[in-house]
Amino acid sequence: MTPIRGYVFDAYGTLFDVHAVVEAGCLITRDPAALSAMWRQKQLEYTWLRALMGRYEDFWAVTESALRYTIRRLDLTASEAQVGRLMEAYLSLACFPEVAGALERLAERPRAILSNGAPAMLVAAVRSSGLGRHLQHVISVDAVKTYKPSPRVYALGPETLGVPAGELLFVSSNAWDVAGAKAFGYRVAWCNRLDAPEEELGVRADVVVRDLTQLPL
Amino acid sequence: MTPIRGYVFDAYGTLFDVHAVVEAGCLITRDPAALSAMWRQKQLEYTWLRALMGRYEDFWAVTESALRYTIRRLDLTASEAQVGRLMEAYLSLACFPEVAGALERLAERPRAILSNGAPAMLVAAVRSSGLGRHLQHVISVDAVKTYKPSPRVYALGPETLGVPAGELLFVSSNAWDVAGAKAFGYRVAWCNRLDAPEEELGVRADVVVRDLTQLPL
Repeated sequence: MTPIRGYVFDAYGTLFDVHAVVEAGCLITRDPAALSAMWRQKQLEYTWLRALMGRYEDFWAVTESALRYTIRRLDLTASEAQVGRLMEAYLSLACFPEVAGALERLAERPRAILSNGAPAMLVAAVRSSGLGRHLQHVISVDAVKTYKPSPRVYALGPETLGVPAGELLFVSSNAWDVAGAKAFGYRVAWCNRLDAPEEELGVRADVVVRDLTQLPL
Repeated sequence: MTPIRGYVFDAYGTLFDVHAVVEAGCLITRDPAALSAMWRQKQLEYTWLRALMGRYEDFWAVTESALRYTIRRLDLTASEAQVGRLMEAYLSLACFPEVAGALERLAERPRAILSNGAPAMLVAAVRSSGLGRHLQHVISVDAVKTYKPSPRVYALGPETLGVPAGELLFVSSNAWDVAGAKAFGYRVAWCNRLDAPEEELGVRADVVVRDLTQLPL
């Protein structure tokens, strides 16, 4: 096996803890977990659907659309100010507790984010989480105007780092994202934080870890 | 407005009632509605993900993968024979009660199915529902090896019927499918059988009906 020459990380749920988003839901519902789960599901669905339709809108717009759908679907009401407050939770995320130390441990090789997030969202989350000094590249799908798991997105990693996909370790907490990266040609680690079952997409992770301290060097 | 020169129908949930699939779930769980809901959700997710990854497998394979994931995710157990019985439910579907009469009412113009379903699945469902004499074309995405809402799928309608999309009425109970067809250029009717909220995908149905008896001539 050739050595790993760089690390490419998914952002939301992998590096950044979206707990602040769940908490913000308390503004408009007594069941913020239900709001958050449906919001996240719709957010992903809309990225997949828009990518397939060839009608890209950036992740900020998609995230707001998913929130508005979810509010109506759950029969909630929210003022424009409340919608704004919920959206802003995405701009002030923390990282999971082990992340800074885990990235430091990998510091001999370049480390990058490759995320669905719009550039301004990623800049804000990198700043609020304090991870900036551990990351050499922050890559948004916005460069190619489509979404994961399109191969055009995964191609941005090798292009930006100047390292073939097979010598990069792609790390995500989303099993479908791991499948997409593996299908593209990365070595892949699934950070299975929530003990989820594997997806049935015909590809398997090279390694499964519980958190980022366990990543191979 | 130019007259409608043909009708293109989604299959599952629009013409065919998937209640038999829910019922078959009783073989392995006391909560077949939960099994059925997750199975359907995963089935769609896998079509979107595989289409985006460029790793098409036909709808029979995707449907079985989604079932196997769902069984594990819900901590159920099923023998291979039971998995087979659940899958076979897709081959013996009924149509919704109003469908045959509604298609008969539209008989002056060509009527087609355009479905994610694999060809053999569609042949079986058309036969079991007795709708064959009301349909001039049964079109599967398998011809282009991708899934809705890819424009390559929707293009099959005008190509097969020899009528421009803008003069065809596309009919689906799935709001996201309606959005995909509208984005492609069809006139679209959303058959909102379950009183669902609209999706937030930036396109709206031309007409919303409760069942197929209300379709415009």
